[in-house]
Amino acid sequence: MAIVIITPDRDASPLRDQLNRHLPAGAAVWIYPEVPNPEDVTMAVVWKHPPGSLKAFPHLKLVQSFGAGVEHLLLDPELPEGVPLARIVDDALTLSMRNYVGMAVLAIHKRLDVYLENQRRKVWEQPQPVEWPVRVGILGMGELGAASAQFLAGMGFEVWGYSRQRKTLPGVTSLSPQEASLAEFAGRINVLVCLLPLTPQTEGILNDSLFRSMPKGSYLINAARGGHLVEADLLRVLDEGWFEGAFLDVFREEPLPASHPFWEHPKIFLTPHSASVTNPDSASKLVAENYRRVMAGLPPLHRVEAEKGY
Amino acid sequence: MAIVIITPDRDASPLRDQLNRHLPAGAAVWIYPEVPNPEDVTMAVVWKHPPGSLKAFPHLKLVQSFGAGVEHLLLDPELPEGVPLARIVDDALTLSMRNYVGMAVLAIHKRLDVYLENQRRKVWEQPQPVEWPVRVGILGMGELGAASAQFLAGMGFEVWGYSRQRKTLPGVTSLSPQEASLAEFAGRINVLVCLLPLTPQTEGILNDSLFRSMPKGSYLINAARGGHLVEADLLRVLDEGWFEGAFLDVFREEPLPASHPFWEHPKIFLTPHSASVTNPDSASKLVAENYRRVMAGLPPLHRVEAEKGY
Repeated sequence: MAIVIITPDRDASPLRDQLNRHLPAGAAVWIYPEVPNPEDVTMAVVWKHPPGSLKAFPHLKLVQSFGAGVEHLLLDPELPEGVPLARIVDDALTLSMRNYVGMAVLAIHKRLDVYLENQRRKVWEQPQPVEWPVRVGILGMGELGAASAQFLAGMGFEVWGYSRQRKTLPGVTSLSPQEASLAEFAGRINVLVCLLPLTPQTEGILNDSLFRSMPKGSYLINAARGGHLVEADLLRVLDEGWFEGAFLDVFREEPLPASHPFWEHPKIFLTPHSASVTNPDSASKLVAENYRRVMAGLPPLHRVEAEKGY
Repeated sequence: MAIVIITPDRDASPLRDQLNRHLPAGAAVWIYPEVPNPEDVTMAVVWKHPPGSLKAFPHLKLVQSFGAGVEHLLLDPELPEGVPLARIVDDALTLSMRNYVGMAVLAIHKRLDVYLENQRRKVWEQPQPVEWPVRVGILGMGELGAASAQFLAGMGFEVWGYSRQRKTLPGVTSLSPQEASLAEFAGRINVLVCLLPLTPQTEGILNDSLFRSMPKGSYLINAARGGHLVEADLLRVLDEGWFEGAFLDVFREEPLPASHPFWEHPKIFLTPHSASVTNPDSASKLVAENYRRVMAGLPPLHRVEAEKGY
């Protein structure tokens, strides 16, 4: 019995070493494409695998995404039919995302952007005490969204959540499409945090129409996927002064090309898809646990519904 | 009966207008130096008053600092003897400071400094997932220090407190000089937050010897007073790479002179003494309450012990 790791854009050896520590004896771990015996492979751990590559393994019982998202998996038209999919839900990943969102919201609240610009220009200027109430809206209330919402509510911010299924969380006003349209939700907030899964329904959801439903002077934080954002629409609302700023961790093309206007935009603070990075150490425990479960005929933890996309 | 406001470096009219709303009828509010009848003045609200100016008021019952600190008051060698001193303790002030400290610690934790520099250089670089545990030490556990410590502990950081009198707070390990020397405290943390009052004992406490008691790669956050910091010592540990960075809100000379090296230092993030600014609206309620108390012969709220300096 064996696990194959297919993560062409990152070094798989730390994960392999961690897995060898956590797996039961007799379970081999191979790094694609060096797979001595494809027939033995019962589980694939993948991140941006070459489409079609999973067909080489006829006895797969589980395809495990090595991250919180699975949209990279669902892009493969030759995904083996009937094999369950799972994703990583990891406390370390959740904590890291929560802290990124918390930092971004506090930086907005304290006007970090203004101070950075003033320091560059050597301007000593005490702004009026900030009275502007920060009203944060979290789009997507899965593990990461719910954790971020609770973190911000605990800081004393007004927090709204919006998701297909309404979540009940203390200190957070949650809405679903049954109670309010997306535009109505957007009208109540001035900081929008996107933590949605990327699906055909959410692709391009961060667009001009949504931005203009928010009040003038609003901010965007996108820590989900580059595909959620219509980049030209964000540049337009920033340049027109409708939006005050944006924290972006994800982009349509990654790495972000050197010629991209986001790099030098004074109202954009960008990070290289690192708000929350899967940690081989903690993620490997979940992968090992899912291996044990599928080998014992149990359903995997954090199974993904392919038709919903998350 | 009357109150005099002496705040030469800021416009006193918002405070006067707010006080007129909260004070009992018959209490006049005058802005120094336009005081029709100095004999009627029973309370002075001051911020950086001209030394000796309080002698003009023979019937003072209270000198109220219009801020959290009183070091500006105690600098006056002609402070009227036997007249109680009080300071502002205000939820809005505390919240604002807490949020500044929270932002700074999260920015350190998420390596904001590295990302800002990378964005400037258009470098797409995912650092290793941050494993470095942030251990924050709060120097000075008064209202602002205690609130910041609890805020950070609630975020999940390891938090240490150090103060003359040991404070008991959930999630915070508090020390006093009885349990540990300042150097021992500093050796346990890698982010130092100064929220001390400025007194002859604390002047220059942020110095080379303290910095070198902390591990290599540490950070400083000074949101107390410029007088706490030996500025040349901070520049040295930053330039030698012993310290990774600093968030500074206060300076020996304010406004910070344009020629000061802090402005352009790549490891210093500076704000113009605005981490927490007294809000005339909320502070005026406390001032009015203290007026009522001293007129009724009661001790003022938030009285300062002149010999301790806070």
